[in-house]
Amino acid sequence: MELTEAQLELLRGKNFAAVATLREDGTPQTSIVWIDTDGEHVVFNTKNGRAKGKHLRRDPRVSVTVFDAQDPYRYFEVEGIAKLELDGAAEHMHHMSRKYTDKEWDDVADRVVVKVEPQRVFSYQV
Amino acid sequence: MELTEAQLELLRGKNFAAVATLREDGTPQTSIVWIDTDGEHVVFNTKNGRAKGKHLRRDPRVSVTVFDAQDPYRYFEVEGIAKLELDGAAEHMHHMSRKYTDKEWDDVADRVVVKVEPQRVFSYQV
Repeated sequence: MELTEAQLELLRGKNFAAVATLREDGTPQTSIVWIDTDGEHVVFNTKNGRAKGKHLRRDPRVSVTVFDAQDPYRYFEVEGIAKLELDGAAEHMHHMSRKYTDKEWDDVADRVVVKVEPQRVFSYQV
Repeated sequence: MELTEAQLELLRGKNFAAVATLREDGTPQTSIVWIDTDGEHVVFNTKNGRAKGKHLRRDPRVSVTVFDAQDPYRYFEVEGIAKLELDGAAEHMHHMSRKYTDKEWDDVADRVVVKVEPQRVFSYQV
């Protein structure tokens, strides 16, 4: 599915998303991430060896709710399959850090870029 | 598990949470909700007949990430089992609406109060 221009705009801005992944027993786990897009996917960056990376390697089904930092009740949800990319993940983390904090990230070891292709999109006030 | 005073404060304020529930096939689904607490549980209010209510009746495992509306990267995650209460759910929805919008809610039919007992808590900058 294609994201709308309003949805892409939220992804390009300094907004946030909640990501849900699945533990080994199928229990959901959520956390807040910085967000990005390549114009097609919802993109975020996480630690490869930590929970989200481990969960997604085992089960790539993911739900991401992207919200307007100024008005969190304005949001859209993307469900899809996560593709994990190690190549370029360190540089991408610096890029994300510059977007949100205007400086590079301290430690870019063990990063992974997660790209979610939207299979189902639910939009609320966006 | 007991929530800390800082976590309860976030729940009492006009902050938001992302809730992850499970579809029938185990896929996670997320959305943004208004939040509340009784001093022990993470509490929210949803439509009984819609996705979250249906999912939680089938599988009560839930993850809720509560974030500071002023600084969403300040958040905590609660994983637990959802208890659904129909009694008092309409009045509770008015109470939530007054908290966030200073007025009563339009249509309180088919509401359910969801109380999540924290079994696992992950805190980030809270």
